[in-house]
Amino acid sequence: MLASKLYCPTLREIPAEAEIASHQYMLKAGMIRKNGGGLYSFLPLGRRVELKIEAIVREEMDGIGAQEIMMPIMQPAEIWHESGRWNAYGPEMFKLEDRHGNHFCLGPTHEELITTLVRNELRSYKQLPVTLWQMQNKYRDEIRPRFGLMRSREFVMKDAYSFDVDAEGLHKSYQDEYDAYTRIFTRCGLNFKPVEADSGQIGGSHTHEFMALAEAGEAEVVSCPKCEYAADIEKAEPAALAMAAEDAKDMELIETPGCSTIEELAAFMKIPVEKTIKAVAFTIDGEKTVLCMVRGDHEVNDVAVQNFVGGNAIEPATEDELKAHGLQPGYMSPIGADTPDNETFFVLVDPTAMNVPNGVTGANKAGYHYQNVNPDRDFKNVTVATIRMMVEGDACPHCGAPVHIMRGIEVGQVFELGTKYSESLHATFLDQDGKAKPFYMGCYGIGVTRTIAAAIEQFHDDKGIMWPVAIAPYEVVILPLNMKDEELAGYAQDLYQQFMAVSSDVVLDDRKERAGVKFNDADLIGYPVQVVIGKDTKNNGTVEIKVRRTGEKEVVAKEQALTRVQEILSDLRSKNM
Amino acid sequence: MLASKLYCPTLREIPAEAEIASHQYMLKAGMIRKNGGGLYSFLPLGRRVELKIEAIVREEMDGIGAQEIMMPIMQPAEIWHESGRWNAYGPEMFKLEDRHGNHFCLGPTHEELITTLVRNELRSYKQLPVTLWQMQNKYRDEIRPRFGLMRSREFVMKDAYSFDVDAEGLHKSYQDEYDAYTRIFTRCGLNFKPVEADSGQIGGSHTHEFMALAEAGEAEVVSCPKCEYAADIEKAEPAALAMAAEDAKDMELIETPGCSTIEELAAFMKIPVEKTIKAVAFTIDGEKTVLCMVRGDHEVNDVAVQNFVGGNAIEPATEDELKAHGLQPGYMSPIGADTPDNETFFVLVDPTAMNVPNGVTGANKAGYHYQNVNPDRDFKNVTVATIRMMVEGDACPHCGAPVHIMRGIEVGQVFELGTKYSESLHATFLDQDGKAKPFYMGCYGIGVTRTIAAAIEQFHDDKGIMWPVAIAPYEVVILPLNMKDEELAGYAQDLYQQFMAVSSDVVLDDRKERAGVKFNDADLIGYPVQVVIGKDTKNNGTVEIKVRRTGEKEVVAKEQALTRVQEILSDLRSKNM
Repeated sequence: MLASKLYCPTLREIPAEAEIASHQYMLKAGMIRKNGGGLYSFLPLGRRVELKIEAIVREEMDGIGAQEIMMPIMQPAEIWHESGRWNAYGPEMFKLEDRHGNHFCLGPTHEELITTLVRNELRSYKQLPVTLWQMQNKYRDEIRPRFGLMRSREFVMKDAYSFDVDAEGLHKSYQDEYDAYTRIFTRCGLNFKPVEADSGQIGGSHTHEFMALAEAGEAEVVSCPKCEYAADIEKAEPAALAMAAEDAKDMELIETPGCSTIEELAAFMKIPVEKTIKAVAFTIDGEKTVLCMVRGDHEVNDVAVQNFVGGNAIEPATEDELKAHGLQPGYMSPIGADTPDNETFFVLVDPTAMNVPNGVTGANKAGYHYQNVNPDRDFKNVTVATIRMMVEGDACPHCGAPVHIMRGIEVGQVFELGTKYSESLHATFLDQDGKAKPFYMGCYGIGVTRTIAAAIEQFHDDKGIMWPVAIAPYEVVILPLNMKDEELAGYAQDLYQQFMAVSSDVVLDDRKERAGVKFNDADLIGYPVQVVIGKDTKNNGTVEIKVRRTGEKEVVAKEQALTRVQEILSDLRSKNM
Repeated sequence: MLASKLYCPTLREIPAEAEIASHQYMLKAGMIRKNGGGLYSFLPLGRRVELKIEAIVREEMDGIGAQEIMMPIMQPAEIWHESGRWNAYGPEMFKLEDRHGNHFCLGPTHEELITTLVRNELRSYKQLPVTLWQMQNKYRDEIRPRFGLMRSREFVMKDAYSFDVDAEGLHKSYQDEYDAYTRIFTRCGLNFKPVEADSGQIGGSHTHEFMALAEAGEAEVVSCPKCEYAADIEKAEPAALAMAAEDAKDMELIETPGCSTIEELAAFMKIPVEKTIKAVAFTIDGEKTVLCMVRGDHEVNDVAVQNFVGGNAIEPATEDELKAHGLQPGYMSPIGADTPDNETFFVLVDPTAMNVPNGVTGANKAGYHYQNVNPDRDFKNVTVATIRMMVEGDACPHCGAPVHIMRGIEVGQVFELGTKYSESLHATFLDQDGKAKPFYMGCYGIGVTRTIAAAIEQFHDDKGIMWPVAIAPYEVVILPLNMKDEELAGYAQDLYQQFMAVSSDVVLDDRKERAGVKFNDADLIGYPVQVVIGKDTKNNGTVEIKVRRTGEKEVVAKEQALTRVQEILSDLRSKNM
């Protein structure tokens, strides 16, 4: 490709709305453009990156015998009513009507569609297992689309669905996808971790998320440096922490003016935060109020709360709901509140909070707390349940070593769905014993466009992107520093032709721009290898080769340039760099 | 691929709704399934065909230096308001709202989006020409989706857009796309014709449609057997036909009971249909009533009418509109009607109708016609304009030879848009003279999924599909007639491995089905080459090779099978078969 022909409108300034590196650099390097909230165009360089990821996904799916299909993006409402998810999915689903008044959604996922597609046609155990997959645009009406490709409203997803006769078959199909995902993200050059996760909305039991580790990630991951344990923080279950024993003192009501945060309270009381007990309250499906108590330095894990109590939508409780149960916002605790009936009003206390001796907690009276609270003695009729998030240094649930907490970008997820959808949609096969049974299903997703963003988050510096070779828009850029010098321009053309004879994955920057502009653009766009043709090429027949990722430079005779660049690329590829 | 693993649910019966061969066979061969009106899933074999066409398109687009991008399917309403097409597009555009009440459409085409995408970024004549293209789902809310992939509501289209500094540049970009399209459809094995066409809704001046010739086509094409002339029937302009001269007789009102069609009228009057003059009336944008007069054996070309009169939407006139202009439905003519003002009421008479001597036409009185009508004398204040469709045997506008009328499926179209969109959307570049000028744009579409249907319409027999090699789901099927015979099964496996070592474009039908079932499925699915392993393979080491398209069979030693099949495939490919 000639840079003079390439449609790649680079920007001098980064648009103010771009907060993270991947969003900033993809805009600046002319790879994407925004056409609306969460709606992007991929320009030629961005599209090439995406096509390379798609090709890797396709190869690995072929490799495990998964068969590619393409389902409609527009899905009839009927099948979502049948599964019961039309309303459950909520406002994140884009809905529309046709000219006859029929209802459709733009698929956020395809469990309903695939299940109704194969039912009545995948009839016998003899035809199983089967895994079908597709790669297409998916839609989610994010309330606040942001971070470019990380959280957009239209995005490319690869989704696969497996059908098995039993749980054992499903485990195998799941493992095949899991292994394929590991190869895909490895080949894409990502630094990632498969972590145990919660299955959430989509249903099912066993699930892993593939997390690309990066500061810009919206998810938190618990990772053990000693054993292999890794989990989404919402899934990780922390052990109860012991506290130094004390003799229980008498509980006292005290005035605590101006203590609106737990830190202010601890400072006012001159006690460590660990001696306070914090309250957070939720409402589930607008029907159940749940008061959650954790130690002052801990956070409540709402997924754990929801898994414990059940229901669909968990949200912060409103002031009215709190007061209806005798709770005073800002000063909540079980003391002085209504007695939990465990139907409309629950009080859950984390085991570590139960261990706080002579602690401080809310008095359900504005401006007042109790001190010398001993939950065993003072919290009546409460339920003890692990509802806190893990923190740095918590014990690994597998080996006990202190864990790390990292941030991650979810680029893939694999689910064992079991029979949830096959049962609700009546999709069965005839088993060997002649009986109709529901399929054991799995579903498996990769955020293709999000993978692009994740790669940039991991591999960039202050000058631009440092693509892994496998997904770089072009692998090599040839930089003649002075196109007006005909001899140098000729060398560059020669070299370009040599490279093109081997692979079209090369750009010749034939623009009549200053050397500085060319270097900056090459660093910004992030071609893995730069070949510089300058004065030395003329003086002593050498070119300079720079590896973008490592910054390493070397000088070689121009006749050796092609061979040497191929060696470097092959070395980088072998390291998935 | 092993047939035992392939997800390809063939049907015994063809669903009643499938009226044409491509729809019937794609359903029967398990290549597509319907998920809603005009919404289809592509199963593995169908998806492979589509991917092969996509690959051919991509190669040819690369070949002419067009750059691949990907724009959003969901488009903000604002840009369509800006171009003035939000309302003009009508009910065929799918529209939706997001959770904040913003309006969007599902793109039926991308002129607005591409133009706003490049405006302000494609700034200088130095960056031009540029052609950008994409391949993605497009949406059209057809009032009556039918014929499977031929007229669906979600379909895959390749669309390209070119930007040039002037008309001359545009001609060159247009010609590049035209030539690439010719190569694409040739490589896909289609029997097609580029024809001159009307530009319609999308605007612009110069345009060609690529028509795959087939009886099931919804379009009519005029084709000259002598010169190169070919045009969409709506575009083709017929010459006036002379008629034998007669002395003009006196016009007479006559009662014509029970003559509701022109044929009945001719029979009642005992005259040839050519001696009648037929009337058809339209309303344009609900504002202009147009009475059209053509010779009894001719049909009115509404596109010609609209091009002559102007306006957006042409529809049949209502009874009320007719009566408002003194026209009697069923008995219309200019005689006795209001005088045309050529603003709200037009009367257009085709030149051939003007030549009818002593003809019969409506009297604007129920049950009555006039005879001995001589338009020159009797039609007052009318406008003569060519408004009839060409018919078989009409003179070619280029060379005068009698033309043929054929049916065709529109699989592609190329347009010179000129400055229509760049002007309405204010997309300009700085030219060499330092002045801001609007781009000269072209747009170019290929119906990728429709191309699949067109190929089947052209290449099938009563047993199934006969794919051109280039777009066949798999090129070869190996048919061991008895998988229970271990020796034969072994031969088949050996041969399969030999083929797989060369290319994965082969299926081994390893199912334990009867030979008849395997032959029928192979013919139905339409693999270009079948390799039959039966008794003779055991007895004398031979296999039978059958070419699906020609029906030719030959017997070769099994050791020669691979080489011979490769020769056959390469021969078929060289003939684009």
